[in-house]
Amino acid sequence: MKRYERYAHEITALIEAQTLKAGDRLPSVREACAQRKISASTVFEAYYLLEARGLVQVRPRSGYYVNAKRTPRQAQPHTATPAQHSTDVAVSELVFKVLESTRRKDVVPLGSAFPSPTLFPLDKLARCLTPAMRSLAPERLSEDLTLGNDKLREWLALRYVVEGAAAAPEEIVVTNGAMEALNLCLQATTQAGDVVAVESPMFYSALQALERLKLRAVEVATHPRTGVDLDSLADVLQRHPVKACWFMPNFQNPLGSLMPESAKRAMVALLAQHQVPLIEDDVYGELYFDLRRPLPAKVFDTQGLVLHCSSFSKCLAPGYRVGWVAAGRYAPAVQRLKLMTTLSTAVPSQLAIAGYLQGGSYERHLRGLRSTLANDQQRALRLITRHFPKGTRTTRPQGGYFVWVELPAHINALQLQALALEQHISVAPGQLFSADQRFAHCLRINVGHAQDPRFDAALQTLGELACGLS
Amino acid sequence: MKRYERYAHEITALIEAQTLKAGDRLPSVREACAQRKISASTVFEAYYLLEARGLVQVRPRSGYYVNAKRTPRQAQPHTATPAQHSTDVAVSELVFKVLESTRRKDVVPLGSAFPSPTLFPLDKLARCLTPAMRSLAPERLSEDLTLGNDKLREWLALRYVVEGAAAAPEEIVVTNGAMEALNLCLQATTQAGDVVAVESPMFYSALQALERLKLRAVEVATHPRTGVDLDSLADVLQRHPVKACWFMPNFQNPLGSLMPESAKRAMVALLAQHQVPLIEDDVYGELYFDLRRPLPAKVFDTQGLVLHCSSFSKCLAPGYRVGWVAAGRYAPAVQRLKLMTTLSTAVPSQLAIAGYLQGGSYERHLRGLRSTLANDQQRALRLITRHFPKGTRTTRPQGGYFVWVELPAHINALQLQALALEQHISVAPGQLFSADQRFAHCLRINVGHAQDPRFDAALQTLGELACGLS
Repeated sequence: MKRYERYAHEITALIEAQTLKAGDRLPSVREACAQRKISASTVFEAYYLLEARGLVQVRPRSGYYVNAKRTPRQAQPHTATPAQHSTDVAVSELVFKVLESTRRKDVVPLGSAFPSPTLFPLDKLARCLTPAMRSLAPERLSEDLTLGNDKLREWLALRYVVEGAAAAPEEIVVTNGAMEALNLCLQATTQAGDVVAVESPMFYSALQALERLKLRAVEVATHPRTGVDLDSLADVLQRHPVKACWFMPNFQNPLGSLMPESAKRAMVALLAQHQVPLIEDDVYGELYFDLRRPLPAKVFDTQGLVLHCSSFSKCLAPGYRVGWVAAGRYAPAVQRLKLMTTLSTAVPSQLAIAGYLQGGSYERHLRGLRSTLANDQQRALRLITRHFPKGTRTTRPQGGYFVWVELPAHINALQLQALALEQHISVAPGQLFSADQRFAHCLRINVGHAQDPRFDAALQTLGELACGLS
Repeated sequence: MKRYERYAHEITALIEAQTLKAGDRLPSVREACAQRKISASTVFEAYYLLEARGLVQVRPRSGYYVNAKRTPRQAQPHTATPAQHSTDVAVSELVFKVLESTRRKDVVPLGSAFPSPTLFPLDKLARCLTPAMRSLAPERLSEDLTLGNDKLREWLALRYVVEGAAAAPEEIVVTNGAMEALNLCLQATTQAGDVVAVESPMFYSALQALERLKLRAVEVATHPRTGVDLDSLADVLQRHPVKACWFMPNFQNPLGSLMPESAKRAMVALLAQHQVPLIEDDVYGELYFDLRRPLPAKVFDTQGLVLHCSSFSKCLAPGYRVGWVAAGRYAPAVQRLKLMTTLSTAVPSQLAIAGYLQGGSYERHLRGLRSTLANDQQRALRLITRHFPKGTRTTRPQGGYFVWVELPAHINALQLQALALEQHISVAPGQLFSADQRFAHCLRINVGHAQDPRFDAALQTLGELACGLS
């Protein structure tokens, strides 16, 4: 444990023991340095960590203060045992029906897949658009269209290098959001009828993609805290002719699970042994509540088998539709598919984001966003503990903006969803997250709308409705 | 014939007889009115028509002047006889190889699919970006994402109404360029293994899409001037279980052919009889050299069987990647496919275009663009007549920026393409435009780069290389 981690740990203990109470001020940096004989930067790092974890908050020109009481730690949902066989997928109808309900303006969007757009530096981004496009030489509009903007790909490649993954700019294709990247990867690695390994529960868009491409899904047991179960994966690889995996090692949607580094390393090695490509959906990787970005599995890839997909839609620029993929040995195939399906990604969006990134305030924005989301999660968990039926279990993800709620087994989430919608609240029922609709008593709740003044009341109402079904 | 058309016709005759020579001034509007007893607006309309046809040009505050001599009318290419059977498609490799060569900066892009980006109001568009995004309420970023921006779809719907087609905003999906629209339409109307009727020759991206989706192509004879041959189409519909047609009734790529209105009407009726949907690729429709936009086939559709696709990429905003489809009875299917594959189209691009369109200078821009392209075509045809081998035939499209060149039968276009590339000139060889590479002695030449100072020399070199192969 590093010095700042030890200091943060001690403060955490004081807060949990209620020696430091909500609203108390932490020692100033000067005081802490003097008392503990540690450097100012150590104190700052410790306080950043506590802030990122949602334990304290900074008040400008005043200092760091303890946040409202932490939630008592609730029981964690169970790890589901997926079916042994692979299945055809047919969830689209249900997904469309539910998604449609979340788009209504009068609804508190607890079922949405996006955090509130108010969390993003929309004005700064907008101001980048016109200058970026005006400084572009016209002939650049028709060069290197398909791969994406050079500057943006260089920035992304550098980011990979910093994280320890080798991804040359040539390996990267800028896409119309991560959704396009993931779809292209699936097409580059599979044919209709192939078997794809997925998590259980899993993101419904992945299920829809499998359905659309006539692929078969085989589900791998997924732990609510540590993600893909390696024994289960090994077993699946033995028993099925798996052609690709689609996994989210960082802050999985819907569980929020985070695979430990050692597990990621072992998973990549196992897949390499079977020569099975991994489509890594890493759109939430930047939204960590700890001090460091969790590594993508791509970092451990030595064979070009990991196709790493991400985007700016959930951490910087919603609506700009800029995602990307570093597709390893599949890069040429992905490039061609991109060329054939959407040709290229909108240049204004790419340039504005490249311009914003050069401006140097991305890290500051991300720090604020992470802290907000960590606080929002705390608040949501407190409300769930207070208002939901006895026996409810929740995940407590270390990043992202989803909480996965396991209700008492007899509650039907689709029924709850219908009741909630009558009260102008959307939720994502567990049925959406598996090919065989196995999570019928679960909910995914989006806490990224906690700034909405209707949020607390909506969670309370939702809990009361669930109690009514108990 | 209307009064202005009659007057324009007379002036044309005077120019062709060389009574009016290059550089001569046309009668002023006042003179014409007095001499002919016609109204000023009739004279203006006639002169606009002549300008659009590239016969005259306006010099501000001076008048209309006759352009340099028109090309002697060259023989027109033959109508190809397509194979009777449907075929699997495998042209992608060749297309990629050739396309890659056109992207090099040191190359004169006669093989490009895009006109020069300098022809577009890039600065005005760029200036629309920031204000448009700043005026957007953040919550709008997550509403109605998939269909596209309301204002833009209303503008498009109104445009359809003006043209006489009924397309409600709800029927329209904004896409990542026309390419995405066309791909979504193909997926909405077919399954792997199905037969799709296409033109002969046809746009290679359509061939690639068929190949990717494992569809079979059956080619319909296509006249270089009047497009799809209805007898051939009727025959194909009789003999093959056609599930969809992908046609370009207006300024077909590569021929530049334009189906007469009566033929469009008959085609839509024939397809309705067989209940076969028509995917109408209309990306060049705005680039007409005549006085009025040629109607889309969609206008004659009463059964929701025409999926009309277009974009702003070739007439206003290259690189913005904004296209659309009005998909008739297939609109719900297209919406869902869009949601599943790329979720939504970049908002900044949509808003900037919506803002530009509201500014009211779109029509003026289009008028200038059409006149430029008409002049460029004239110049290119003159150069081809002068420098290409004896027996060369060319189309003389009434819009767009392609000329289809039929060389003497023994010349291999791929060989010519390789020689040209050594001289830093790209061309699109005829082999790209058919599933069975039947147009081996043909070329598609892009005249939309005539503003490039290297253009004339490149066409001359190309002609000389072709002569060397004769």
